[in-house]
Amino acid sequence: MRTIGLEDIDDIALGSSLLGSGGGGDPYMGRLEAIAAVKEHGPVTLLDVDEVPDDWTVAPICGVGAPSVSLEKGTNGIEYPKVRAMMERMLDTKLDAFLLSEAGGMNSMVPISAAARAGLPLVNADGMGRAFPGIQQDTFTLNGVSTNPFVIADEKGNCTVLYTIDNDWTERIGREITTASGGQVTTLASPMTGAKMKTSVVKGTVDYAQKLGRIIRTASDAQGEEPEAFFLRESGAMRFFKGKICDVLRETRDGFNFGKVTLEGIGEDKGREAVVEFQNENIYAEVDGEIVATVPDLICLVDSETFVPVTTENLKYGKRVLVVGLPCDPAWRTEGGLELAGPRWFGLDVDYVPIEELAARRTDA
Amino acid sequence: MRTIGLEDIDDIALGSSLLGSGGGGDPYMGRLEAIAAVKEHGPVTLLDVDEVPDDWTVAPICGVGAPSVSLEKGTNGIEYPKVRAMMERMLDTKLDAFLLSEAGGMNSMVPISAAARAGLPLVNADGMGRAFPGIQQDTFTLNGVSTNPFVIADEKGNCTVLYTIDNDWTERIGREITTASGGQVTTLASPMTGAKMKTSVVKGTVDYAQKLGRIIRTASDAQGEEPEAFFLRESGAMRFFKGKICDVLRETRDGFNFGKVTLEGIGEDKGREAVVEFQNENIYAEVDGEIVATVPDLICLVDSETFVPVTTENLKYGKRVLVVGLPCDPAWRTEGGLELAGPRWFGLDVDYVPIEELAARRTDA
Repeated sequence: MRTIGLEDIDDIALGSSLLGSGGGGDPYMGRLEAIAAVKEHGPVTLLDVDEVPDDWTVAPICGVGAPSVSLEKGTNGIEYPKVRAMMERMLDTKLDAFLLSEAGGMNSMVPISAAARAGLPLVNADGMGRAFPGIQQDTFTLNGVSTNPFVIADEKGNCTVLYTIDNDWTERIGREITTASGGQVTTLASPMTGAKMKTSVVKGTVDYAQKLGRIIRTASDAQGEEPEAFFLRESGAMRFFKGKICDVLRETRDGFNFGKVTLEGIGEDKGREAVVEFQNENIYAEVDGEIVATVPDLICLVDSETFVPVTTENLKYGKRVLVVGLPCDPAWRTEGGLELAGPRWFGLDVDYVPIEELAARRTDA
Repeated sequence: MRTIGLEDIDDIALGSSLLGSGGGGDPYMGRLEAIAAVKEHGPVTLLDVDEVPDDWTVAPICGVGAPSVSLEKGTNGIEYPKVRAMMERMLDTKLDAFLLSEAGGMNSMVPISAAARAGLPLVNADGMGRAFPGIQQDTFTLNGVSTNPFVIADEKGNCTVLYTIDNDWTERIGREITTASGGQVTTLASPMTGAKMKTSVVKGTVDYAQKLGRIIRTASDAQGEEPEAFFLRESGAMRFFKGKICDVLRETRDGFNFGKVTLEGIGEDKGREAVVEFQNENIYAEVDGEIVATVPDLICLVDSETFVPVTTENLKYGKRVLVVGLPCDPAWRTEGGLELAGPRWFGLDVDYVPIEELAARRTDA
């Protein structure tokens, strides 16, 4: 058990943005809201998974929508008490703690704000170990946890409760509600006992994000080492490419951001070209026509100097970035995990190969 | 107080289709379901508005969606108990009776099926006195009744509860949920006390529909009178045009049917042309370029021989129809009524003029 104070928020936001793999929302707005919430209500208690009593009722809280919308349409403050009150009414029991639904810039901050304002603890875990576009693409679904009741609140004051026949239907209906509400909403869903949670989450997400954030923040001041080498060694990230963004195709459609970014190599990658495709999150990366990574592994674009992650809604012509990868949680490499979040779920006509294996093949060649 | 038995259903379905003004759903599927429900559970008790105790909780039940979808996607049977159970859970009280939300082929039958299966009485009233495409276009909204909680169930088993900030938002979010669920759902909403209901409905809808249905059914056997003359005199409908459908434009978009039908005159109307526009319901009619009726007045197309109403999803090239009109309930002619359901709500760039006045102008000219 520890607390999340003002001094922890920046690193958590920064590191979560890396785990967000281009998605999970820009941390800017979420960070401001979390700082305001902790300033007003004090630090948030962070419980490790094993510290949560088995009979507690816990549930993940997050923002859902197109990240590009969240840049302009923030929360109102009424969403958190509204979704919590509705969840407790539907369950006829009090909620004991919040979880993170995913690791992402905005969605690491929403649970901190909600926990601070509600005076509830936060569990050091999430349902993805990264960010994914689909509501049902989480380890809760993988472990048979229903989203019911899926509670949605928008900043206008509308509140919806969904009981669906399966989590795919939650995505279908929930996405339409998100679109009707203006493209960005707050959700609280998938309530579960502490016991069920322990076998259904990716553990230690907040700690891991904070560690990655610290690495990013301190890389530029690394002693006796090139910042890039320090960042890669400390984070364990795999380097794919360094380049300048020369083309961005982007479309906000059906409640998602879809697109593709093309990079021309700089430095040691001069003369080469990379392409990264995304659906909210980066889902595919190739260098000179060769696949270097696909979902569910993490594909991250970071500023080439500061290593600050660049979310897909912030991709801009001329920006210099490093394309790196991190292996996903082992849960995503199982048959069920790949069915729910593998390349074919995203419409990519390729089989999944872990990034370590793809790298080994390149070294062999 | 009376009962609705098997012998009443056909006339109610037929007459409601006329009141449906082209919308409210084709009665075919709804009629079969109502017959099955009454056969299995016995007649439905029909209470007049004044017979309902003030402290009762009553609510309108109906199908929402694009009528053309309802031709192919029926209800499953699980929707009625599901929406009722959810409504009672949200209110924490039992429902005492159902209301009709609108007068329409399908939506006159849904409440009979639901009431029979639930063993609850039905109130002889509805919220429109006709059918309208918008969820919020009813006399409940006009009288300040919130749709909250707006409960939706689809035939797959998904159930949603909406608490919105106003009834316009119910339409916006509810429509998206309808689309996500395949274009046709069952809803139970706008719960109110018996006392509030008494000042918020169009009274006597079931009786009126049944009377109109009887007129349609018996017109062809009228003694000593042309069937058309009998139908018009008995129903009080105003005759606009008799013609053959020569063109139908139809589009299912945003959960609605939009379209336009062009008719070329036959009989005494030979050489003339009429155009009728619709959004689920008929909303505008002109003859030789002159407006003869607009919403909220009722514009109905009926078979030229049998006077059976033709709903907008059943408009077909070559069909011979009579275009007739009926004045709407006075509630719709008020400022609030016209704001909620007048021609401009539907994007028509005309001011509302009652059909009686439009007719008088034509006689004067």
